[in-house]
Amino acid sequence: MKQLTGACIIGQSGGPTAVINASAQGVIQTALKADCITRVLGAAHGIKGVLDDKLYDMSQEDPAELDLLQYTPSSALGSCRYKLADPDVDDTDYKRILEIFQKYDVRYFFYNGGNDSMDTCNKISKYMQKVGYECRIMGVPKTIDNDLNGTDHCPGFASAAKYIATSCAEVWQDARVYDTGMIAVIEIMGRHAGWLAGSAALANLTGCGPDLVYLPEVDFDMDQFLADVKAVYEKNGNCMVAVSEGIHYADGTFVSEAKTSATDGFGHAQLGGLAALLADKVKQATGAKVRGIELSLLQRCGAHLASKTDVQEAWQAGSAAVNAAVEGITDKMVAFQCTREGGYKCETSLEPLDIVANFEKKVPREWINEAGNNVTQAFIDYALPLIQGESNGPKENGLPRFARLKKVLTTEL
Amino acid sequence: MKQLTGACIIGQSGGPTAVINASAQGVIQTALKADCITRVLGAAHGIKGVLDDKLYDMSQEDPAELDLLQYTPSSALGSCRYKLADPDVDDTDYKRILEIFQKYDVRYFFYNGGNDSMDTCNKISKYMQKVGYECRIMGVPKTIDNDLNGTDHCPGFASAAKYIATSCAEVWQDARVYDTGMIAVIEIMGRHAGWLAGSAALANLTGCGPDLVYLPEVDFDMDQFLADVKAVYEKNGNCMVAVSEGIHYADGTFVSEAKTSATDGFGHAQLGGLAALLADKVKQATGAKVRGIELSLLQRCGAHLASKTDVQEAWQAGSAAVNAAVEGITDKMVAFQCTREGGYKCETSLEPLDIVANFEKKVPREWINEAGNNVTQAFIDYALPLIQGESNGPKENGLPRFARLKKVLTTEL
Repeated sequence: MKQLTGACIIGQSGGPTAVINASAQGVIQTALKADCITRVLGAAHGIKGVLDDKLYDMSQEDPAELDLLQYTPSSALGSCRYKLADPDVDDTDYKRILEIFQKYDVRYFFYNGGNDSMDTCNKISKYMQKVGYECRIMGVPKTIDNDLNGTDHCPGFASAAKYIATSCAEVWQDARVYDTGMIAVIEIMGRHAGWLAGSAALANLTGCGPDLVYLPEVDFDMDQFLADVKAVYEKNGNCMVAVSEGIHYADGTFVSEAKTSATDGFGHAQLGGLAALLADKVKQATGAKVRGIELSLLQRCGAHLASKTDVQEAWQAGSAAVNAAVEGITDKMVAFQCTREGGYKCETSLEPLDIVANFEKKVPREWINEAGNNVTQAFIDYALPLIQGESNGPKENGLPRFARLKKVLTTEL
Repeated sequence: MKQLTGACIIGQSGGPTAVINASAQGVIQTALKADCITRVLGAAHGIKGVLDDKLYDMSQEDPAELDLLQYTPSSALGSCRYKLADPDVDDTDYKRILEIFQKYDVRYFFYNGGNDSMDTCNKISKYMQKVGYECRIMGVPKTIDNDLNGTDHCPGFASAAKYIATSCAEVWQDARVYDTGMIAVIEIMGRHAGWLAGSAALANLTGCGPDLVYLPEVDFDMDQFLADVKAVYEKNGNCMVAVSEGIHYADGTFVSEAKTSATDGFGHAQLGGLAALLADKVKQATGAKVRGIELSLLQRCGAHLASKTDVQEAWQAGSAAVNAAVEGITDKMVAFQCTREGGYKCETSLEPLDIVANFEKKVPREWINEAGNNVTQAFIDYALPLIQGESNGPKENGLPRFARLKKVLTTEL
């Protein structure tokens, strides 16, 4: 292996999670210790920070504050939803990225994100190869949606899953205190993959979980849904339903679509208001007291309820990316390969960025029951080991003590 | 003091909290040890369980499960929203309650709830005095709304406040990851009193809190609100707003009123959808990306984030009620008298039920800033000691292990 000496950049991209900063911490702390990495730069708002020449000098941060990153939700360096053009059509951004890489002698680039971010990472990697700029480029997975190809699971998913399952168990307790009965409809994130909605079913291990779970992997049928809810309510006097925000009719129309027409920076439809919409429908169909609850941003930033397993694995993913790059590897994403029989074990592997970018890994149909209104034991067996352990971050004033970064912009060339 | 021997009933009433079961635990565990209390009966769904002769024999519960009540949100015995008639107009319910008291030789009655429940407790107490049935009747305070008269604060408030402040701090992190800015509107419970909405401001102690806080104690002005939000957004590029569900215009109309016309069992208007409504208005006024987030039931059942101080005080309130009753006291509610200077200290006192029932203690106007869009330091100094400490309940499968009661209906006479 040839030693490659130069600066590194770490960028965070896409929607934040409870543990994306743990991955950044893994990258930063490992890179700061690597002899061949001369400077560790944090990109302000992901690739936009590179394009804008806004890079923080991470060596100027207090090490104790960097230690707190693992307990700090959201993207401490700032994130972006910026889609790079096809370089054959418009290479403006790529030329600019190359210029910045050359300016700071950047030889290592770590990009932490989901599908779209791995696409960005992949495009930059292929461009640098094409123009012959020597640089090691690694993707670090992140997404609460858990839909990245080539990895057992994604950092961020488990903490959101733990938050969702715990919240469902607590709401279950609350939603059955009166003898008059109640139906609760919990709206959970996940546009195209039902990993998070399925995780609501973990709450049943506490004895307090949803009766019905609807994932976007199965076409939604409003009449069947209302019949399902009615049947449970008439039998039990109560009903809890977990639904993915991404449930859609057979023709592909999102159930929530009528409520909004806004789109995010990647052109995805912005969903929301589904819980209220379904609660209305259920109320009309049953006459019951109904509560629609949208877990909203809470489920992805609930670091106080992060899974310790997730926090540790997220750190390892970041650290493994740096170690692999230092050892000469490039054009890969860190992934997890896990075994569950005989006790949960998780090891990192390296997967080609090509096979990761722009694919969405769905919940296998056989992990959803035949009626399409719950997950099976196979899903539970898959998800349960991931939510183990409490992160127990430090408190100040009875409230979480988050990392406070100085974010000193680098000026030296 | 004359010793009074007989059974006791504990009932839970009104909206549940994260720690109402800690108070029930305090009552049950103390009563089980009291020599003069022959049987400890839990009323199924509060006073309705008395009327329906549905009483659980608490001595049949596993003591280890009773220990878990302090970590179990919501009302383990079941709750109700049942308003007793004026006994001078209709004494049917009172006669029935007396009949049940006589049937089981009930000489102690502990009722755990908020304003309306203290009214119930007071009416029963006065009726028993009138008919000369010897019985000691004690109210145990409970309400996330913190609006009971005669007490420094109410069990349940602090845990909800801790949940709200922590969630606001986490959402704050999430809501400013992009360089494009965002406005977050957080809807918080509290019909007529702004204690909970004000608690959102505690998040500022983490460096991550709301810029603006609107309480129902101040008349709401939509134009001023939009101007406030716009000013913060234009200055900072981001804005977080906490609003009480109970904000209303000068004529008393709830801002959310247009959204629903349903009422609960006590005849209160059921509010909701305010976050979405305000988010729409803010979006129109600013063109910014806006998220409306309703904390909904999550804020009152979030036992995983309960304040240890609150859990302990809730237990003490229940225990103190039993001890006082055994000592011969009746017709009182347990209250808290606290000092904050020189370190927080909290002691129980006993207040007449009359002065507690049906009053709503509001946030003092001087604890709200002049502009009416935030709380002052006095509010923070009041609330901060209450949210200290983590309850750290036991986990099973990485999820909370709630109490599992057998709820054996008593049959013996």
